[in-house]
Amino acid sequence: VDRFEPNLRIPGPTGLPPTVREAGARQMINHRGPEFAAMLGRILDGMRPYFGTTNDIAVVSASGTGGLEAAVVNVLSPGDRVLGVSIGSFGDRIAKIARVYGADVTKIDVEWGQAADPAALRAELERFADYKAILLTHNETSTGVMNTIADLTAVIRELAPDALIVVDSVSGVGAIPFQMDAWGADVVVTGSQKAWMSAPGLAMIAASDRAWAAMETATIPRYYFDLRAHRESHALGQTPFTPAIGVFYQVDEGIRLMTAEGQDNVYARHAACAAASRAGLLALGFELFADQAHASRTVTAAHVPDDLDWKSFNTELKRRGLVLAGGQGKLIGKIFRLGHLGSVTTEEILGAMNVLEIATIGAGRSVRPGAAVAAAQVASLESYGIVTPTAAGAGA
Amino acid sequence: VDRFEPNLRIPGPTGLPPTVREAGARQMINHRGPEFAAMLGRILDGMRPYFGTTNDIAVVSASGTGGLEAAVVNVLSPGDRVLGVSIGSFGDRIAKIARVYGADVTKIDVEWGQAADPAALRAELERFADYKAILLTHNETSTGVMNTIADLTAVIRELAPDALIVVDSVSGVGAIPFQMDAWGADVVVTGSQKAWMSAPGLAMIAASDRAWAAMETATIPRYYFDLRAHRESHALGQTPFTPAIGVFYQVDEGIRLMTAEGQDNVYARHAACAAASRAGLLALGFELFADQAHASRTVTAAHVPDDLDWKSFNTELKRRGLVLAGGQGKLIGKIFRLGHLGSVTTEEILGAMNVLEIATIGAGRSVRPGAAVAAAQVASLESYGIVTPTAAGAGA
Repeated sequence: VDRFEPNLRIPGPTGLPPTVREAGARQMINHRGPEFAAMLGRILDGMRPYFGTTNDIAVVSASGTGGLEAAVVNVLSPGDRVLGVSIGSFGDRIAKIARVYGADVTKIDVEWGQAADPAALRAELERFADYKAILLTHNETSTGVMNTIADLTAVIRELAPDALIVVDSVSGVGAIPFQMDAWGADVVVTGSQKAWMSAPGLAMIAASDRAWAAMETATIPRYYFDLRAHRESHALGQTPFTPAIGVFYQVDEGIRLMTAEGQDNVYARHAACAAASRAGLLALGFELFADQAHASRTVTAAHVPDDLDWKSFNTELKRRGLVLAGGQGKLIGKIFRLGHLGSVTTEEILGAMNVLEIATIGAGRSVRPGAAVAAAQVASLESYGIVTPTAAGAGA
Repeated sequence: VDRFEPNLRIPGPTGLPPTVREAGARQMINHRGPEFAAMLGRILDGMRPYFGTTNDIAVVSASGTGGLEAAVVNVLSPGDRVLGVSIGSFGDRIAKIARVYGADVTKIDVEWGQAADPAALRAELERFADYKAILLTHNETSTGVMNTIADLTAVIRELAPDALIVVDSVSGVGAIPFQMDAWGADVVVTGSQKAWMSAPGLAMIAASDRAWAAMETATIPRYYFDLRAHRESHALGQTPFTPAIGVFYQVDEGIRLMTAEGQDNVYARHAACAAASRAGLLALGFELFADQAHASRTVTAAHVPDDLDWKSFNTELKRRGLVLAGGQGKLIGKIFRLGHLGSVTTEEILGAMNVLEIATIGAGRSVRPGAAVAAAQVASLESYGIVTPTAAGAGA
């Protein structure tokens, strides 16, 4: 293994930068004391610009799916008509949660690999617009597709102005520009183990004034995930229930690193690593799964070629320290996914391409040595604007 | 401050031993890989003897209250008659959760500071025995009272043999002997930040065969807290949703330390630290809050004397590095609580008594210098059987 720790390239949890790791080792404190209050304040303030909001945010000690559940159970009542626009596993999941809790869910099931089409949404809302809530996925981790949320919210605001817009941005916010207030989203969810470069265990949920108001009348029962209780307690620098303090330490440090880097630079780094990942995989002969007009900036999915034995290929990757994710749900065995979010760097993507090339050669497939890392690096340089696309030759 | 880190003597989170802190700094791994599966297996195997069970345990990424919610929503249906035996804040909380989710809850409200009386439970069950579930608290963190669960379950098994017995042992199991199977408890909940010497963020829930069967017909909706999904996933070495990996690392290390120490020694250490805490506080002139026949082995509550300005007293404690907890709910300002669970040692209790004595003297109260630490130490020695109670003189 030509690396001293595995290159963890799954779409979350992501690798922890050294100081985030160290933050996880801090001693416990009283979660009802001033140190915790100060830390919570830093986290909430630090996250708001990434959500693109001045709204209140709740931090819930649970993983991303807990955050999705919180988003649903706080604003809905049993029987509420809900539209779930699903482009993959996680879109299915939040729709399922709404169903489990008694909502009357209509689904738009977009072909996996494609983004949601604003025109299709428009057609649905022209047919029926009286939805209590519409569930959108910002970045679909299972397919590597990124929706253009602004285009979807514009349609909703036009045709269903009263609908609450709930956005799963678990693997988006923090890594990809998001403008909750400008776009008119009402509830937005993210998780500590994605852009925030921390361990899993915290879900962050921002809610608009409309959403906070909706919580007053929504009747799905909730207790642990009651966002109003979180908001009240956060105003006192606390959480309603004992918080996952170690993950708070890490998110606090993650945000400190992101602030030092600069929000635009964080976004640029993700864009560059995404471009490098796509270019490298293409150069290795893989076919990308997602509609490239809507390629995710945090995870890239590629088809497993019919004539490739994925299991032994992946065993070789793991043996050489590269950890990828397989497909989820109906894509098990059909695609693999390379995560590039949180603490990801171009260097790590180049390292991933090196290992992928070794395994590709080992599998007896034809590749031009060096082409993948060169293509990946050039794509990164182009993304950063260091070279112009026309001048670049992808290592040719 | 005569100590290099605060003496965190709240009833959870507890201080982390050095190697548990280090475990919190470990790099992330794939939670769908073999390393995670092996860790989960060690944790489940390591916990079972402390629950006193051969049953399946579910590990949920949430804090203790999330565990209580999971215990309730998985086995109940709306309208189910439930008996909540409350001896404090947390007994009230689990009863409230059951009510929020639609159960028809009858409460026995025991005077705070007292344990539940098996005779009163008997009288209630002789009046009405057809409860679907009975909610008990093993160790009430808000009052420092420990119920004798075996006596309560014996009454229930006699008079209401079909009732599911749900036990909040968040601050009990691991630190205080518990025999889930022998006592006939059906659902038992604990949390990572208590006996397990780890950060908060994980709730562990053991369920009997009867309870697992009840989950098949219970109709309260649940998704994130669905214990059957956890059980199924645990059988594959995974969790249904992304787990709080950093807390898993810590609990894994905490259990390793507990195994090395020996289960009986863990219990003996808690008993000794509890005895030392009580003796020291009494020697300082404080009146203990709990009925001493049912004093908790993990947290001791004492009255704030009428003529003591608690706020300035506590400020002085904090300035000297001793962090205690105040009262909860109706006990705010009336009691303070000293936690002694998880990684607690006699030495830390002696240190706490030293600081308490300094503050007591500073508050102008009469104390015999050295009496508290001597009394605490002798109580510890007696508890360990190193000196016999009659031979001891509490530093006289």
